[in-house]
Amino acid sequence: MSTAQIPAALVKELRDKTGAGMMDCKKALTETNGDLEAAVTLLRKSGLAAAAKRAGRDANEGTISSYIHQGGRLGVLVEVNCETDFVARTDRFQEFARDVALNIAAMNPIYVSADDVPDEYKAKEREVYADQAKDKPESAREKIVEGKLAKHLSEICLLEQPYFRDGTEKRQRTMEELRVDASSELGENITIRRFEIFKLGE
Amino acid sequence: MSTAQIPAALVKELRDKTGAGMMDCKKALTETNGDLEAAVTLLRKSGLAAAAKRAGRDANEGTISSYIHQGGRLGVLVEVNCETDFVARTDRFQEFARDVALNIAAMNPIYVSADDVPDEYKAKEREVYADQAKDKPESAREKIVEGKLAKHLSEICLLEQPYFRDGTEKRQRTMEELRVDASSELGENITIRRFEIFKLGE
Repeated sequence: MSTAQIPAALVKELRDKTGAGMMDCKKALTETNGDLEAAVTLLRKSGLAAAAKRAGRDANEGTISSYIHQGGRLGVLVEVNCETDFVARTDRFQEFARDVALNIAAMNPIYVSADDVPDEYKAKEREVYADQAKDKPESAREKIVEGKLAKHLSEICLLEQPYFRDGTEKRQRTMEELRVDASSELGENITIRRFEIFKLGE
Repeated sequence: MSTAQIPAALVKELRDKTGAGMMDCKKALTETNGDLEAAVTLLRKSGLAAAAKRAGRDANEGTISSYIHQGGRLGVLVEVNCETDFVARTDRFQEFARDVALNIAAMNPIYVSADDVPDEYKAKEREVYADQAKDKPESAREKIVEGKLAKHLSEICLLEQPYFRDGTEKRQRTMEELRVDASSELGENITIRRFEIFKLGE
């Protein structure tokens, strides 16, 4: 299919779905012969590549966002960074920051990413899992322990938690995927620096 | 002046000013011969006494309140406690919690109260002040050091900081006085448990 044959309505649909630029959407649809879902995947992949390139850049602008849940019984404060004040002020960035605060309230993470989990914490978890797996054959034990640890880390680390708004009908993105999507659309390195959860009386 | 001679309008004015009950207001105005300002002082004093009695009671209800300042460059999360969910839901309590969050954003405290300041921190400050005062007569030195420390603690402790809304026209209450006023009006022990300040990029 040539670029000229791509219906404008399809380009618009892809733009709405991905937030990518018009030329990128046309190109992706041309390459995938007008297959919308394949074009989404293609854009996401190239977005991932671009986001990876951006990942090293300084992100010291952004916003502090908060969310108060359950009529004041739970509160979240989060710092989300980008590279420029201009992007920080966009609706898209503010929406992302709000979604992060909401997801924290819903999913109750302990750390931002697995890199932030202290080694002592991981060592203690490994001990527990090794004890649980002590009846398994020794050759399988390490794999079981590492598997359980990875699963546990994905439950307590914000970036590995599922994005609650995606629901269960379609595949749930992780918060890391949501971050990469925002970074792709806004063209800046976006990071979640820190968060705090207050629960009443705890 | 007998209770019967107190004009209803004066009682209403005193109630509006202090939030105290009608009978307490009538009694205070009777005792002060209808002097409104003296009655306010009298009620505040008895409120202080009552608040002191309440201070030991458990406060595990309340609310988490947040405040985002400077278009997202500064964020505050604070837990304010009272004794019952009923009081936590009142406008007066919610207003107090909001004021606390706002004051934190405005005054940038480090600790809730002087009791929370670690001894090592105080020891280091004393060293600095002792060094500054080394040319003063020895007999005066300790007083100077303790005076400077007290001043410094009043600047970094939330409860000793001035309430910014009081402005400079009238005497500024401290946040501790504001807390006692709220406690008196609501009839429960009210405490500020903890707070967190996020500044963008820090």
